Amino acid sequence: MGKGLITLRDYSRKEIEEILSLARVMARDQRTGTDIAKGKILAALFFEPSTRTRLSFETAMLRLGGKVIGFSSSEGTSVGKGETLADTVRTVSQYADLLVIRHPREGAAQLAAEFSSLPVINAGDGSGNHPTQTLLDLYTMIDHLKDLEGKEIALVGDLRYGRTTHSLAPALALFGVKLILVSPQELRIKNEIKVELDKHGVKLRETEDITEALDADVLYITRIQKERFPDAAEYAKVAGSYRIDRQLLGKRTPLIMHPLPRVDEIAADVDDLVTAVYFEQAGNGVPVRMALIVRALGLGG
Amino acid sequence: MGKGLITLRDYSRKEIEEILSLARVMARDQRTGTDIAKGKILAALFFEPSTRTRLSFETAMLRLGGKVIGFSSSEGTSVGKGETLADTVRTVSQYADLLVIRHPREGAAQLAAEFSSLPVINAGDGSGNHPTQTLLDLYTMIDHLKDLEGKEIALVGDLRYGRTTHSLAPALALFGVKLILVSPQELRIKNEIKVELDKHGVKLRETEDITEALDADVLYITRIQKERFPDAAEYAKVAGSYRIDRQLLGKRTPLIMHPLPRVDEIAADVDDLVTAVYFEQAGNGVPVRMALIVRALGLGG
Amino acid sequence: MGKGLITLRDYSRKEIEEILSLARVMARDQRTGTDIAKGKILAALFFEPSTRTRLSFETAMLRLGGKVIGFSSSEGTSVGKGETLADTVRTVSQYADLLVIRHPREGAAQLAAEFSSLPVINAGDGSGNHPTQTLLDLYTMIDHLKDLEGKEIALVGDLRYGRTTHSLAPALALFGVKLILVSPQELRIKNEIKVELDKHGVKLRETEDITEALDADVLYITRIQKERFPDAAEYAKVAGSYRIDRQLLGKRTPLIMHPLPRVDEIAADVDDLVTAVYFEQAGNGVPVRMALIVRALGLGG
Repeated sequence: MGKGLITLRDYSRKEIEEILSLARVMARDQRTGTDIAKGKILAALFFEPSTRTRLSFETAMLRLGGKVIGFSSSEGTSVGKGETLADTVRTVSQYADLLVIRHPREGAAQLAAEFSSLPVINAGDGSGNHPTQTLLDLYTMIDHLKDLEGKEIALVGDLRYGRTTHSLAPALALFGVKLILVSPQELRIKNEIKVELDKHGVKLRETEDITEALDADVLYITRIQKERFPDAAEYAKVAGSYRIDRQLLGKRTPLIMHPLPRVDEIAADVDDLVTAVYFEQAGNGVPVRMALIVRALGLGG
Repeated sequence: MGKGLITLRDYSRKEIEEILSLARVMARDQRTGTDIAKGKILAALFFEPSTRTRLSFETAMLRLGGKVIGFSSSEGTSVGKGETLADTVRTVSQYADLLVIRHPREGAAQLAAEFSSLPVINAGDGSGNHPTQTLLDLYTMIDHLKDLEGKEIALVGDLRYGRTTHSLAPALALFGVKLILVSPQELRIKNEIKVELDKHGVKLRETEDITEALDADVLYITRIQKERFPDAAEYAKVAGSYRIDRQLLGKRTPLIMHPLPRVDEIAADVDDLVTAVYFEQAGNGVPVRMALIVRALGLGG
Repeated sequence: MGKGLITLRDYSRKEIEEILSLARVMARDQRTGTDIAKGKILAALFFEPSTRTRLSFETAMLRLGGKVIGFSSSEGTSVGKGETLADTVRTVSQYADLLVIRHPREGAAQLAAEFSSLPVINAGDGSGNHPTQTLLDLYTMIDHLKDLEGKEIALVGDLRYGRTTHSLAPALALFGVKLILVSPQELRIKNEIKVELDKHGVKLRETEDITEALDADVLYITRIQKERFPDAAEYAKVAGSYRIDRQLLGKRTPLIMHPLPRVDEIAADVDDLVTAVYFEQAGNGVPVRMALIVRALGLGG
């Protein structure tokens, strides 16, 4: 049996690079499709909605010639009737060959893996881990920058509650980057993540001022959620001061990334820049997830 | 790359006939299936629910050997998180080979086509266009009447807000039919559509009295929605006077069509008439949509 | 054309055994998959949610090489627009090769079969029938006990409203078992079912005391729903007294079954017993439903 993926925190840089390598092979079949997973079924258990992640996992499985069952929200599932996650997982393990799980609660994917007889891939659980997002982020950065060693990566926005950065920052730490953490005071990265980054010996700089990050190699922008702020005026002020547009960028050409969906963080006039790669980044979710599925099903690689 | 379909208003009669011709070829494989779209993925983006249209598009793609991803309502999609239609479309374009979009807002399909790198098929947007419905309507009429030239087609019911007639009437105009427009005063066809029909030189007659339309070649019935009327009594009176039953039809045998779902507009005793073709009409959605998919994917035809 | 399945009440023991036999053949392909239903489409019309039943039907069809369309709740379907079940069924019959229907109203599957040109499989309608559940229950029992003749089967819990027992008890009657019916006074089996069981000459014993059933060959546990009781305290008392745990079982090793989802009826410490087969039982839904699909599509068997 192949290997699932719960968190990248157990992974070495070498292991991550092997997955990315396999993803690069998969990218060749991304549009044409293969039959490598013919007869296999992926169960997509999305206990909270996530269109992008779900559709790209489904696309990945279908491009591999496999099939998909599942649900896209916990509404109308037996969870509503009081079933435990463990029971749902044990039941669906009877049907499919591979579980992909998205869950609002931190630790859900780990628990699923303990109760499943099948490999489990974590498609995001609570504010903890979102390893497949992190892998497609790394894939995209390396695709453009080749080597991340010594590169400056600015993570911008909500670094406190955003799942993406929690998962991405520690992984970047393995690749020898310098981090610039740009966020309003209220949304600074949690201390426990800083401690974790320190352990990896990452050089990091924190700032509230986005203009200090514009010379970075990558601007990785995340959404600042209205509901984090006590009043709307405060939110508007903060959100406005982290908005990227052409005027702010001037002649600089950092790689501009975003996990999507975006709301107002990146102005539409940025979309046409060749270094604005956020849609391409979303597209990289397909080969990366193809690689993870191939690995989980033990189909080679 | 193949061609999408946003509105039939840009199409000549010849182009429409070519699509219908291809649909007739597709009808042969409608039940047995082919492998012509093997490896291809259709993304069905239904921002509002439409079971019939969605299921027949999915059936069409599956019968062609292709695969389907998507969502069936905007609930729980990233739209709920404030994502623009343009961003959703650009993202999903990274995954699939073809977009089918249904949206409550007029113009949504056109906008999607502008932002997508893939062909887009409009599965109904707002009260504007529903070209695939119109094509299956034409397919059904021609299948039964052979030539539409000079035929009398009565459009009955809500001609003001109903999307179907907005899309169907102008297309019929290309085929040399005579139109009888039967509706209550409040739900008469909009003037702009009448102007459009006039430009095509269509002979049309408006009436509030359904008995004046019973000798037509086709009775195309549409639903009158309760919510269009200020009070329930008024609605009941109107709805009652547009209801088709055997007694009303007498010995006449017009082709009876309906885009479905029907509520009370056609009595159950009509269902057994050989000229009551509304379920067959729904079924024609499959070969017509197969043809549109084949065309959009550039697979021949 | 093959045969659908509305209720097992029309079936002889021999006919049921033939289906179970075919299911045993299907079990061999349960994980690897076949192409026997290639090009065929199953429409899963779930007018009420049922994750387990839906996913195992989908799995069954996919493992057979077929494809699936449908919906998982009536929300956002044309039913919401007032369409009758008969019309929905007649429409979808135009698309697919086989209908699977789940509906909150008793008799819905029978009605669907009358209006459909396709074979219909009942995936549970109201409190009436759930024949595919019954078949997988029988499959599981026979798999473990070989011959059911003379075996003691205890049905425990809500025998009044629970759909499973309504459907299972009469079928068990054909196999020469002895029934022990264990339920609180308020949830005793309905008299009409008792009359039906009497006609089959089943030996049955009713009790409120679960300890009288612990020596049975099978303990078939069902959920007791809170909403059946006027107050929470009364519910808690009853629910508590029907809960199975290791202490209650002692050294006895009855086969322990449950249609799932469970809430509190079976303690987690029971899960590891080799005779606790409820997840395996759920898994048997796949070969049983594969057999029913093969039969309905007339693919052999």
